[in-house]
Amino acid sequence: MIYLEDVRIGDKADLGRHTFTAGEIKSFAKRFDPQPFHLDETAAARSHFGRLCASGWHTAAVLMRHKIAYLQRQEAEQRVRGEPLAGYGPSPGFRDLKWLKPVYAGDTLTYATEPMETRVSESRLGWGLMFSLNTGINQNGELVFSFISIEFVERRPR
Amino acid sequence: MIYLEDVRIGDKADLGRHTFTAGEIKSFAKRFDPQPFHLDETAAARSHFGRLCASGWHTAAVLMRHKIAYLQRQEAEQRVRGEPLAGYGPSPGFRDLKWLKPVYAGDTLTYATEPMETRVSESRLGWGLMFSLNTGINQNGELVFSFISIEFVERRPR
Repeated sequence: MIYLEDVRIGDKADLGRHTFTAGEIKSFAKRFDPQPFHLDETAAARSHFGRLCASGWHTAAVLMRHKIAYLQRQEAEQRVRGEPLAGYGPSPGFRDLKWLKPVYAGDTLTYATEPMETRVSESRLGWGLMFSLNTGINQNGELVFSFISIEFVERRPR
Repeated sequence: MIYLEDVRIGDKADLGRHTFTAGEIKSFAKRFDPQPFHLDETAAARSHFGRLCASGWHTAAVLMRHKIAYLQRQEAEQRVRGEPLAGYGPSPGFRDLKWLKPVYAGDTLTYATEPMETRVSESRLGWGLMFSLNTGINQNGELVFSFISIEFVERRPR
């Protein structure tokens, strides 16, 4: 991670793509969100969704995996350049999660994250908070998922 | 599900308990949140958490499973009593998710949900929105996790 002072507002990062297969949609749903439209094609066809679609929690968890992989790539590049690594995390929570459209089996989401605001922490000396808009866009260019994350980021040492 | 008009504000429902084992914490983290303090005891001991703890997304996903199981039990009881079942879902999103304290390996959370507000939907005829406070409390009585869910619930037919 880069220091809080180096975060650029609006600097959108591509977190990569993921295609949601029917198998993994059902596997996640069995463990965490066993509703008929996430578990079974026939039941999904009878639901308001019309087709098998991913649990919203699954959509979110896959973004998290991509975000961690992105941060790890960023840190590897920082090490190559001999730059110091800023501390990162944990997240105290997030705001305004929106599941805007279904994510159907076979859909490919492109995930991104974009810093919206940085702020010095009042509770944790030497640290700040980064507010970012996290998004998932499907293969038709439709925004299907977004939320505002809040994460601790270390400040540049004085 | 009961009809929107039958939902009682403040009527808190116990969703059940879950103990987070080290094995399942690591298994979820490998798939969705591969940060050292969710993956490995030694790395966690060196982190600000001090001990292996669950991904916040894992804490949330387990609540979802308990909520669906609760709704299924409620519907089974409604069927026994011969009551009509109201339509439920999907969720357009949620608000103000807070990870307030770590959920360590071995911790047991008690989950609950409590309707805070109901409102007629402007976009979906015959339906309304239910806003609920969802919580996880650990074995020491500490609130560790909360968020406000938003869910569509069918209105009583006229």
